[in-house]
Amino acid sequence: MPTAPILKLVLGTLPTPHKRAVVVVASGGLDSAVLLRLMQTWAGPEGHARALSIDYGQRHLREIGYAHKFCAQGGIPHKVVYLSALGGILTGSSQTDPTIPVPEGHYEDESMKTTVVPNRNMIILSVAIGYAIAEDCSFVACGAHAGDHAIYPDCRPSFLWGMDHMATICHYTPIHVLAPFLELTKAQIVSLGVALQVPFEDTWSCYNSGPIHCGKCGTCVERREAFELAGVTDPTKYMQ
Amino acid sequence: MPTAPILKLVLGTLPTPHKRAVVVVASGGLDSAVLLRLMQTWAGPEGHARALSIDYGQRHLREIGYAHKFCAQGGIPHKVVYLSALGGILTGSSQTDPTIPVPEGHYEDESMKTTVVPNRNMIILSVAIGYAIAEDCSFVACGAHAGDHAIYPDCRPSFLWGMDHMATICHYTPIHVLAPFLELTKAQIVSLGVALQVPFEDTWSCYNSGPIHCGKCGTCVERREAFELAGVTDPTKYMQ
Repeated sequence: MPTAPILKLVLGTLPTPHKRAVVVVASGGLDSAVLLRLMQTWAGPEGHARALSIDYGQRHLREIGYAHKFCAQGGIPHKVVYLSALGGILTGSSQTDPTIPVPEGHYEDESMKTTVVPNRNMIILSVAIGYAIAEDCSFVACGAHAGDHAIYPDCRPSFLWGMDHMATICHYTPIHVLAPFLELTKAQIVSLGVALQVPFEDTWSCYNSGPIHCGKCGTCVERREAFELAGVTDPTKYMQ
Repeated sequence: MPTAPILKLVLGTLPTPHKRAVVVVASGGLDSAVLLRLMQTWAGPEGHARALSIDYGQRHLREIGYAHKFCAQGGIPHKVVYLSALGGILTGSSQTDPTIPVPEGHYEDESMKTTVVPNRNMIILSVAIGYAIAEDCSFVACGAHAGDHAIYPDCRPSFLWGMDHMATICHYTPIHVLAPFLELTKAQIVSLGVALQVPFEDTWSCYNSGPIHCGKCGTCVERREAFELAGVTDPTKYMQ
């Protein structure tokens, strides 16, 4: 199980000792499910991992229900914060504006730029950092991965390292941002999830809001491809 | 009127040309009223300034009504985004938790640390940056000033410069964070407000939620002192 080197990649330079208390940003997707398990393992019995999901007015709000179920099954405390009014000002994205169609195709296609929600990750991380301060946690973890870098500026290493720096100076005591998947492909995350016994069927990736995964939007295409590349049976039901 | 050197201090290194379209973080307080007028002047007829206020569950929500009135009188478009659920997770502050008393005394006293809302400014700025992206603005301005530095880590120069850097990399096109009061005292802001003909009576500073300013909380003490130091008649009615 490749846990150690992955963590070392990002956590190697952390000051010690740090109580391993971590707020995990949980969307309800595959990546954050694997992340939750990983952080739960990393925190160990001395520390603790808790999940935070944010309703920012996303079209695919159903993902939060998946996060809730996943956390309940894993004994992970889960907080949802309802900020749907954000959807009214973070306009111009297919994720917050129902009049903009969700693009179909590959996750790294140029057409996926319409799925970018303006500054979403800075907003989500800043709320998570505030929650970590209030709950006396020293870490915030998020599931940004290498496949996100092409389209999403706020998933790139320079952005995450910058947010880590900001988290160290925004309050009296430093918080650190962890992004253990930053250099991993989604296929590698699937492999890690298998090792961590993640129930993939209890995760939601689709950008649409149908009863099952559409199979055509960028994140469905990426999800399906990741299982194929990892050589893992995909338990997801797709419409197409 | 000291506008030019103040702006130069912070804006001098900006790349040009930039359309002067700016989202101004407006709390309804004295500083943000002066900031709004300053940014309106700076934007000129070619650009535009718009205001953004955030309900983050603050006890002194009445300040947003003041922002609304001030903007309406000045012809400044004003958006309020209602995120009061934040108050439920950004706990431990007298500003979001009505069971914690608002401290009395000087604004720079150690006791004022209970007024710190965890990571408030990163959250507010990140939302403002997202709004700026959505509205095709290149700037976000906030009213952090030198008097804030003692108690509030998220008002210090290192924090604001860091947020400026993050705003340049979070999206495809860079946004810049402006903080023209960063090196000014509140008394200097009052003086600037006089020059800009700011109606100070239409601003609200008090951390309590009484019918008029309490006169005893840190921000009332700071407000009153600023008018005294500036040698300007204070139009504010204080309970004490």
